[in-house]
Amino acid sequence: MTERTVQLVLHYDGSGFSGWQRQPGQRTVQGVVEQVLARLCNEPVAALGSGRTDAGVHARGQAVGVRVGPRWEPESLRRAINALLPGDVWVASAWAMQPEFHARYSAVARRYSYYVGTGEEANSPFRRRTEHAVGQPLDRGALDAAAAQLVGEHCFRGFAVQGTAPAHDDHRCVIRDAAWRVSPGGLVFEIEANRFLHHMVRFLVGTMLDVARGRRPLADLSTLLHAADNHHVSPPAPPHALFLDRVEYPRALYLAPA
Amino acid sequence: MTERTVQLVLHYDGSGFSGWQRQPGQRTVQGVVEQVLARLCNEPVAALGSGRTDAGVHARGQAVGVRVGPRWEPESLRRAINALLPGDVWVASAWAMQPEFHARYSAVARRYSYYVGTGEEANSPFRRRTEHAVGQPLDRGALDAAAAQLVGEHCFRGFAVQGTAPAHDDHRCVIRDAAWRVSPGGLVFEIEANRFLHHMVRFLVGTMLDVARGRRPLADLSTLLHAADNHHVSPPAPPHALFLDRVEYPRALYLAPA
Repeated sequence: MTERTVQLVLHYDGSGFSGWQRQPGQRTVQGVVEQVLARLCNEPVAALGSGRTDAGVHARGQAVGVRVGPRWEPESLRRAINALLPGDVWVASAWAMQPEFHARYSAVARRYSYYVGTGEEANSPFRRRTEHAVGQPLDRGALDAAAAQLVGEHCFRGFAVQGTAPAHDDHRCVIRDAAWRVSPGGLVFEIEANRFLHHMVRFLVGTMLDVARGRRPLADLSTLLHAADNHHVSPPAPPHALFLDRVEYPRALYLAPA
Repeated sequence: MTERTVQLVLHYDGSGFSGWQRQPGQRTVQGVVEQVLARLCNEPVAALGSGRTDAGVHARGQAVGVRVGPRWEPESLRRAINALLPGDVWVASAWAMQPEFHARYSAVARRYSYYVGTGEEANSPFRRRTEHAVGQPLDRGALDAAAAQLVGEHCFRGFAVQGTAPAHDDHRCVIRDAAWRVSPGGLVFEIEANRFLHHMVRFLVGTMLDVARGRRPLADLSTLLHAADNHHVSPPAPPHALFLDRVEYPRALYLAPA
């Protein structure tokens, strides 16, 4: 029997990590997971994420592809990894995948949430690690109108770090869902798209919050959706309130249970 | 004008503290709060808690009495303290109190919650710091029957650390409310009483969990409620899932707004 392709679904608290991607001398989620895999498999095993998350960003659904020896059933691999991982990373589930599964290129959709605390309570130690405390009520109508403009296919060059996409990239993303919803003590912005550019959710939230606080007009949003650069975007909202919630793959890539 | 008596209501994440009470060479909540008060007031100021919380126990309603100079309005004091506190302690509110207010002796009721995770998800980094993961479903009927027995006035000598109460203490507590309720991913035990003995909530939860897992009969609970010592109690449930939620004082102790 040949090697197995497994999808691991990870939760992590981004507070103690310099982001997802392996970097020499830094504590990163990929680095920690690959260390554990090497210990279990007695050889280097690459953990390929669906995409990078920035330093401080959390996940409760980061998808990671690994190739391991035939002796590793997904569920026993999951338990073995969890037994060795530190407390701030956890493998929630593990799936046997077709050999052609690729965590990044096979993904058809990704979903993020961004938590904004409007009341004083957002400063509580139980919320400040995962919520952006804006300390004031927000114009919900303006937020809803802004989010509605995002749905559909647009070029998001105005909301991305420049130079991070290849030159031929058209920066187009298809937004399936973008909406502000009530969460305890504040609001949460949920967005689902086929792909995201670097810092895109944080730039979008930063700009929408400026609109909701009356610092810039709602019309700026559609201007930015047609911009050729990011010169006029608001500063990105801070990373610690952002969660990667889910990565979606075609059903056909999952191996049917034997 | 003479000095002011102020009640501070504190939230704290107990993970990084050796409990509430000031201890030389240890990081404690009282120690951290008193350091901030000394800096603000340029003199030592005692922060008197409604009671101790053990190392690892959290609060989202610990009541603390302080006496400060007349220039400190409660709300400005609250903001000044919060500006200097580390991220794991936060003053949620501040109340002007009558001079005879005493955080410990004036309290008429205290309320705690204890979170138990029955599913796998309790191991997620976002829940493991504040939830006790038991990793199996629990017999809810047994838990409810156990909690119901606690309500009313009983001697809790069987559920307390020995030697911590004065010799003349009768260990009697009046339980106003004791019930298991559903919480996302598990259950929460909520209990309100006029007073609590040392480790009492954790001993109660440890014993009820043993009953719910079939490790001891329900009848043990009433035996323990009549016991002269704690020799037969189950080990205390771990501290990190316990929250001090609220301390209640008579209305008359609050100064009416001027």
